[in-house]
Amino acid sequence: MKKVIFDTDIGIDDAMALLFLHNARDVELQAITTVAGNASIDDTTRNARYVCDRFAIEARVHRGASGSLGAALGDGFPDFVHGKNGLGDITFADPNHPEEKLPASDAIEEMAKSHPGELSVVAVGRLTNIARAIQKCPELPSLLRDIVVMGGVFMRNGQSGNVSPVAEANMAGDPAAADIVMGSGASVTIVGLDVTQLTIMDETFIAELAESAGDSGAFIHDITRHYFDFYQSIKKERACPIHDSSAVAYLLRPDLYEIDSGPVRVIDRGLAIGQTIMGRNNARYLSDGWEGRADVNACVNVDAAAVKSLYLDTLRLAR
Amino acid sequence: MKKVIFDTDIGIDDAMALLFLHNARDVELQAITTVAGNASIDDTTRNARYVCDRFAIEARVHRGASGSLGAALGDGFPDFVHGKNGLGDITFADPNHPEEKLPASDAIEEMAKSHPGELSVVAVGRLTNIARAIQKCPELPSLLRDIVVMGGVFMRNGQSGNVSPVAEANMAGDPAAADIVMGSGASVTIVGLDVTQLTIMDETFIAELAESAGDSGAFIHDITRHYFDFYQSIKKERACPIHDSSAVAYLLRPDLYEIDSGPVRVIDRGLAIGQTIMGRNNARYLSDGWEGRADVNACVNVDAAAVKSLYLDTLRLAR
Repeated sequence: MKKVIFDTDIGIDDAMALLFLHNARDVELQAITTVAGNASIDDTTRNARYVCDRFAIEARVHRGASGSLGAALGDGFPDFVHGKNGLGDITFADPNHPEEKLPASDAIEEMAKSHPGELSVVAVGRLTNIARAIQKCPELPSLLRDIVVMGGVFMRNGQSGNVSPVAEANMAGDPAAADIVMGSGASVTIVGLDVTQLTIMDETFIAELAESAGDSGAFIHDITRHYFDFYQSIKKERACPIHDSSAVAYLLRPDLYEIDSGPVRVIDRGLAIGQTIMGRNNARYLSDGWEGRADVNACVNVDAAAVKSLYLDTLRLAR
Repeated sequence: MKKVIFDTDIGIDDAMALLFLHNARDVELQAITTVAGNASIDDTTRNARYVCDRFAIEARVHRGASGSLGAALGDGFPDFVHGKNGLGDITFADPNHPEEKLPASDAIEEMAKSHPGELSVVAVGRLTNIARAIQKCPELPSLLRDIVVMGGVFMRNGQSGNVSPVAEANMAGDPAAADIVMGSGASVTIVGLDVTQLTIMDETFIAELAESAGDSGAFIHDITRHYFDFYQSIKKERACPIHDSSAVAYLLRPDLYEIDSGPVRVIDRGLAIGQTIMGRNNARYLSDGWEGRADVNACVNVDAAAVKSLYLDTLRLAR
């Protein structure tokens, strides 16, 4: 069993990823740690509690960072993507699922110390909570099994950024935090736009879920109405990348992804803010920002059809 | 006939590009304007005069900028690539070819005003001279036929930077100047590492030149000894990209290149300094650095075999 902390700014695609984790056979979801991003920290924390309530998910919910460590690209929250409440503006009552007192970054530290070498953090929002935990506990990277990050873009195969030509939203929302995590020495794998933008879901995919995945399917159908409206407005079709669930797919089936490795920096200012840049260990550069940094993994290609099948097959078994 | 100003930091591959221009049937080389880069401004200006002397090139030589407009990546000159004298440390006497009194940027302005709409600037070094000319004469962009720039990398097809993971040397040597030129509204085509790194010459190519292109071939053979030593040290083979001559090839045969267009910014600070970033006009970004900028062209693919044949065939006709 994979012991997992899900660090998330729930979020429509985050909710889909949470249901993916919850229903995966070999995952033991230890906790959900929340962060601001797709919506405010109040909204993302409430959304986590609501999804736990509705689907009887027993994970503890720890509230995390309301803002970024350093400069970020943009301000406010992307309600034009995720709705004002972060869940596509579906209506629901205030959930009963409790919120823990321990803040997210302390919870990550405590769980890592309790299960050294066993915990995977699946991080699908800004990396603020994890960076804070590393700042407080410098040995944290060696205590975690690994960190799977949805974020960034390396532009290896024609993909580009979604909040600037070179930046992805989670990285641009807290570049300083991301740079700390990438340089921490933890076993990090980045599941970025290079692969998520190759893994497309459309209304047919949602209809299959709605038909075969019980209340999970119905919920996913309802929250994605707003999401598809947004993608239709920019892409002219009701189809969108599978972002956060791709990080879960990597956790479950890393063999579906092609990996490149190298030291990664995250740009923390200027027009390129939020860009993830991988150095090459054998290159002769004038710049030295990549020297001596540990390698991280970045997904550069994917068997997208297999990822989509994995998602459908897992949700069809919905508990 | 194409009227051309060759703006250059001669340089081994610059000298090869100058011989390409000189021998091209439909090019009327109006002037050579020099800039620091591959070597100091004293060296690059002397090298221009030497190549003119040796090959009876009648173009005027105007000395340009000794340093960059703004911050640059690195300092000093890359003598490990181009040799201490910029021409692979071949020995030659001080040339007789005169140096004009008019500085490079003034010369560009004056020629553009004398031949409105007719002049192509082939710029294969830092863009300092052209940016200065635009700053002094804001209507310059509309007076030039076009500017063909060797520089930058857009990472569309697996290529990356040569002085940092994301930056090419000419752009990183004066990012502020490059950003001025890219945003000037001039008809700009960027011939960057995306295509030059696909257009490889090796010792066989040099041997063919040495055998068939008279003194030009002998000269190119001699200056490339040092150049190949450098590439062998980093690539483990005696082969290297055809950088500056690719800009000339684009001028002569634009049909050999595939183009993408969009507004381009050049990053002027931080770890991404010197990076060229193309925005997409139909994207919804949080950043707004690309709004309202004129489109420029960037080469994203090339018929490399045809470029190499064009070079060989042109030099074989060496005057």
